[in-house]
Amino acid sequence: MEKNITVENVQGDCSKTLFAIQDTLDLISGKWKIKVISVLLYGKKNFTDLQRQIDGLGAKMLSKELQDLEINGLITRTVNVTKPITVTYELTDYGHTLKSVIIELAEWGTKHRHKITGR
Amino acid sequence: MEKNITVENVQGDCSKTLFAIQDTLDLISGKWKIKVISVLLYGKKNFTDLQRQIDGLGAKMLSKELQDLEINGLITRTVNVTKPITVTYELTDYGHTLKSVIIELAEWGTKHRHKITGR
Repeated sequence: MEKNITVENVQGDCSKTLFAIQDTLDLISGKWKIKVISVLLYGKKNFTDLQRQIDGLGAKMLSKELQDLEINGLITRTVNVTKPITVTYELTDYGHTLKSVIIELAEWGTKHRHKITGR
Repeated sequence: MEKNITVENVQGDCSKTLFAIQDTLDLISGKWKIKVISVLLYGKKNFTDLQRQIDGLGAKMLSKELQDLEINGLITRTVNVTKPITVTYELTDYGHTLKSVIIELAEWGTKHRHKITGR
C-alpha cells in the first residue's frame, strides 16, 4: 500500500522529499515539456496541432521534446497509415498522472498573477 | 468568486493556463528556492538551520534565494535582538499556499522514482 506523502509525515525524511520534488521539476521544468503535456491532456494531437497551440515552439525543438517524453513513458507516438501519413501523439496513462500536478501549478500561477498584477 | 481551474474548464483558454503554469515554474524551479520553501513548511528556521538541511547550498546563494523569496512575499525575515543577534526566516501565509503544489510535486516524484528504479 502506497503511503501518501504529506508535509507532516515526511518530517523525519525531509531529504527524500526534496529529492522527489527535484525529480519532478527536472522532468517538467524545461521551457516546453510541461506545455506539450498540458496540451495533450485535452486529447491526442498531431505534430502540427501541437506546434500551432504552443506559441514560439519550433519544429526541431518540438520533435526533441516529444522524443524525450516518449522515452520517459509519458506519451506514445502513433504513425497512421493515411494518405498522407500522419503521426499522432497521446498521453499514456502514466502521462495522465501528471494532471493533478499541472492543475496545482496552473491554479497557483493564476492566483499569483492576480496578486501581483491586481487583475 | 474564484473559479477553480481544471483541465476541463480551461479548454477554451489553454494559453492562459500555460502562462499560469510557467509563472509558477519560473518562481519555484531554480535549483534551490523550492527546497528552501519546503524546509520552511516545517516551521521557522534560522540561516544556519537552512544551510545545514539543504545539502550543497552555499551561504552566498542561500542569502540571495532568501532575498528573492522575501521580495516575492513568500517569506519574512526577522532579526531577533538576542546575544548574539539571530535572524529567523518564516513562510508568510502566502508562502504556505505553495504547500499543495509542493505535495503534488513530491508525490509524483516519489512514484516516478519507484517506477524508474523499481524500488
